[in-house]
Amino acid sequence: MKEVRIGLLGAGTVGSQVARILSEQNRELSERAGANLVLSGVAVRDVSKTREGIDPALITDDIERVIQEADLVIELMGGMEPARSAMLAALNQGKTVVTGNKAVLAAHGPELNEAAEAHDASLYFEAAVAGAVPVVYGLRESLAGDRINQVLGIVNGTTNFILDQMTTQGWSYEQALKVAQDLGYAEADPSADVEGHDAAAKCAILASLAFHTRVSIADVPTKGITDITAEDIEQAREAGYAVKLLAKAQRVLVDGVEQIALGVEPTLVPLTHPLAGINGPYNAIVLETEFAGRLMFYGAGAGGAPTASAVLSDVVAGAGHIAHGGHAPRESVYADLPICEPGKVLSSLQVRLEVSQQIGALAQVVQAYQEGGVSVASVRQPPVGDQEDQATLIISTHRATKNQHDDILAVLAKSPLVHKIASVMSVEEG
Amino acid sequence: MKEVRIGLLGAGTVGSQVARILSEQNRELSERAGANLVLSGVAVRDVSKTREGIDPALITDDIERVIQEADLVIELMGGMEPARSAMLAALNQGKTVVTGNKAVLAAHGPELNEAAEAHDASLYFEAAVAGAVPVVYGLRESLAGDRINQVLGIVNGTTNFILDQMTTQGWSYEQALKVAQDLGYAEADPSADVEGHDAAAKCAILASLAFHTRVSIADVPTKGITDITAEDIEQAREAGYAVKLLAKAQRVLVDGVEQIALGVEPTLVPLTHPLAGINGPYNAIVLETEFAGRLMFYGAGAGGAPTASAVLSDVVAGAGHIAHGGHAPRESVYADLPICEPGKVLSSLQVRLEVSQQIGALAQVVQAYQEGGVSVASVRQPPVGDQEDQATLIISTHRATKNQHDDILAVLAKSPLVHKIASVMSVEEG
Ligand SMILES: NC(=O)c1ccc[n+]([C@@H]2O[C@H](COP(=O)([O-])OP(=O)(O)OC[C@H]3O[C@@H](n4cnc5c(N)ncnc54)[C@H](OP(=O)(O)O)[C@@H]3O)[C@@H](O)[C@H]2O)c1
Ligand SMILES: NC(=O)c1ccc[n+]([C@@H]2O[C@H](COP(=O)([O-])OP(=O)(O)OC[C@H]3O[C@@H](n4cnc5c(N)ncnc54)[C@H](OP(=O)(O)O)[C@@H]3O)[C@@H](O)[C@H]2O)c1
Repeated sequence: MKEVRIGLLGAGTVGSQVARILSEQNRELSERAGANLVLSGVAVRDVSKTREGIDPALITDDIERVIQEADLVIELMGGMEPARSAMLAALNQGKTVVTGNKAVLAAHGPELNEAAEAHDASLYFEAAVAGAVPVVYGLRESLAGDRINQVLGIVNGTTNFILDQMTTQGWSYEQALKVAQDLGYAEADPSADVEGHDAAAKCAILASLAFHTRVSIADVPTKGITDITAEDIEQAREAGYAVKLLAKAQRVLVDGVEQIALGVEPTLVPLTHPLAGINGPYNAIVLETEFAGRLMFYGAGAGGAPTASAVLSDVVAGAGHIAHGGHAPRESVYADLPICEPGKVLSSLQVRLEVSQQIGALAQVVQAYQEGGVSVASVRQPPVGDQEDQATLIISTHRATKNQHDDILAVLAKSPLVHKIASVMSVEEG
Repeated sequence: MKEVRIGLLGAGTVGSQVARILSEQNRELSERAGANLVLSGVAVRDVSKTREGIDPALITDDIERVIQEADLVIELMGGMEPARSAMLAALNQGKTVVTGNKAVLAAHGPELNEAAEAHDASLYFEAAVAGAVPVVYGLRESLAGDRINQVLGIVNGTTNFILDQMTTQGWSYEQALKVAQDLGYAEADPSADVEGHDAAAKCAILASLAFHTRVSIADVPTKGITDITAEDIEQAREAGYAVKLLAKAQRVLVDGVEQIALGVEPTLVPLTHPLAGINGPYNAIVLETEFAGRLMFYGAGAGGAPTASAVLSDVVAGAGHIAHGGHAPRESVYADLPICEPGKVLSSLQVRLEVSQQIGALAQVVQAYQEGGVSVASVRQPPVGDQEDQATLIISTHRATKNQHDDILAVLAKSPLVHKIASVMSVEEG
């Protein structure tokens, strides 16, 4: 069997598991690749740390040397630099790159893909979206015979865990975040997860694969979960919904032109929808397709070993190609659809208002909707608490553009009868 | 773009959809393949039928000619012959074959794979298992970096629909089958579905991919759903289970040797298990893996358009390889694990007995289990109906081999206190 030399950049949560499994399962992985997989170097920041199960002679902080000596480079350092430059360097040398780095892909994907194509190199990134869930393979290959209309995903396990704890334990956002941090599901600085940026990067990658169009993280309007309250979740439950942070990418027709509507935001999902039942730190992606109908992929979205599983699948594929010819699927951007202006994306909203008990508040709110041209599906007024001068109104709208919704919310914010716009959430139907 | 000529064998439920989508989506599919996809011939049995959307000039009953004139052959005739010979002929000519024919694959897979390898041809069969659900890609490629321990699948939509109707409507098996036939979910001769043979063929294919070992349908002990009664389902519900026809393939250690345990049978699945919630004619496959943990794939398991979606993904991949080099993954059988003797496969059972009300029946039953060396987890005695001389006992066992279970059932069958062994069902835990 031909030997394929593997250079590993990064030996942290994921990289250390890749090294371990590559060693423990070497015979099986090599058989499947049809090539002898040999770890040829491991680059880290701190060469003095002991790294269990990795030959100390392989450890270095010289990224360039690891790339030079390898046929296939696994990038698991994370962050923008030096990850981006390292991948570019490897691709420019015609080497195969496997990465889990959604941040670099969602910001610099085209640059990497062009380098791969120009130098007959390969770029694999199954681990960049939804950890072990093989949705990148799904979209790049298994569904190439269909036409994807919508991708809807729970792609961030940290926020799903937090929302789940808020739901089942009745905790506040802060309490749930603290527990997620204690359990290692959330990092000390949780902002990439809770503000939705991690999901937005994955949304961009999924959309580019589903719609054969370049999509960057900058195209994805993003809202995180930091404003979600226990009350939001409780009232959602009562109305038959779960609150989920969803990554959404949809084929839409706006002004007669086929476009891609994008977004990451907390969303009310009917309890009967398969995504409503995805609990804990799990990930799931629902694809609505023209011919196959609805498909769902479910599994562990993060963690060292699950993510390493995805990385090693790419390694087996990549090493197979190095040994026997072929390369990773090339970037497919033939469709080149425009990205729908955020203000023109349609959605149904559920809006919770705190209003004066005063007769007339309801009438004024309904009038604002009528004048704004947005049709109201229902208005509910939950039983009042002890605050005599205040009532809650929950308005569910039919579909309208974000601009229309925003205009009405601006009117409501100015009304003296509306004390507070307590919550605004998108609703996913069906 | 290079032209790839496609010969279609069969234009029935699936083939007609393949022809339609290939025509309607030709530009998109061709872009993805990087090759101009051209339908070059369509073989059918009855050339006089009108076939909407297919150029009559392409229709013929000359299978050989369609193969001759194509670069890529799609086999969607079904059945053993002439499907097997046609695929062999195409592969022997070095052509790419795409098929949905689980029957031929599960009986003659090695012969086809050897022909593909010998003539540098390609064999694709995503549509053969679970219709549109890309589990063949999943096992052949996306999970090549992991180690599969168990495959558990609802892979036959017809039986899942029937069991579902029996559950939700309280219907008998015969009533539910009739409705399934009226709705087109079951064929006039439903035996391949309801007797479990269709699921057994898929089980063999899944097991061969998951365990890198040749597995044939003859290796799969198979039991269908024809004996399931409304009472079985009702009593299962009460005990917290759904009745599902499962295809099972598991890595087991028997007598110190790693082996594959196989089976298709109606199984009690805890209502909390993800497979318990798969309703209607849908399919789902749960993979338990060493590193990624539990993964699930879900979607439409049959139907013209969904199955065509899977076929066309294979066509895009195959045409891409024809135009740009490479081939389908080769048969991977390096592990070559032995198949576990059916009598040695471990399972927990739930056994429902009709016994004499007589004191002593329970004692005798418990004694039979004790002497047979099978540990009883629980015995329930549901409230008695109006038959004074008869009681029902429901025994749940711990895990034991099939041989042990069978020996005890033989003893019980002979006991004068046991009127009837009303039901014996395997239980899936966790
Ligand atoms: N963790 C997950 O569950 C998960 C899931 C999916 C995708 N990913 C992605 O996988 C990648 C790695 O994540 P991770 O959680 O494994 O990260 P991590 O635990 O922080 O590990 C990063 C590794 O990279 C090394 N490194 C960082 N900067 C370096 C530099 N300038 N030069 C050399 N080595 C450097 C670190 O060295 P030291 O060990 O010396 O500090 C460490 O070994 C990220 O792109 C992440 O988004 C992670
Ligand atoms: N139906 C599904 O949902 C589904 C799902 C997954 C996989 N599959 C698999 O896909 C395959 C096709 O299924 P299907 O449901 O499409 O079958 P079908 O509706 O019975 O169609 C069979 C087609 O093959 C043609 N044919 C049969 N014998 C032939 C012969 N000797 N020479 C030439 N043509 C012949 C028939 O011609 P005429 O039209 O002239 O009769 C018909 O067009 C089967 O292997 C099946 O297991 C089906």
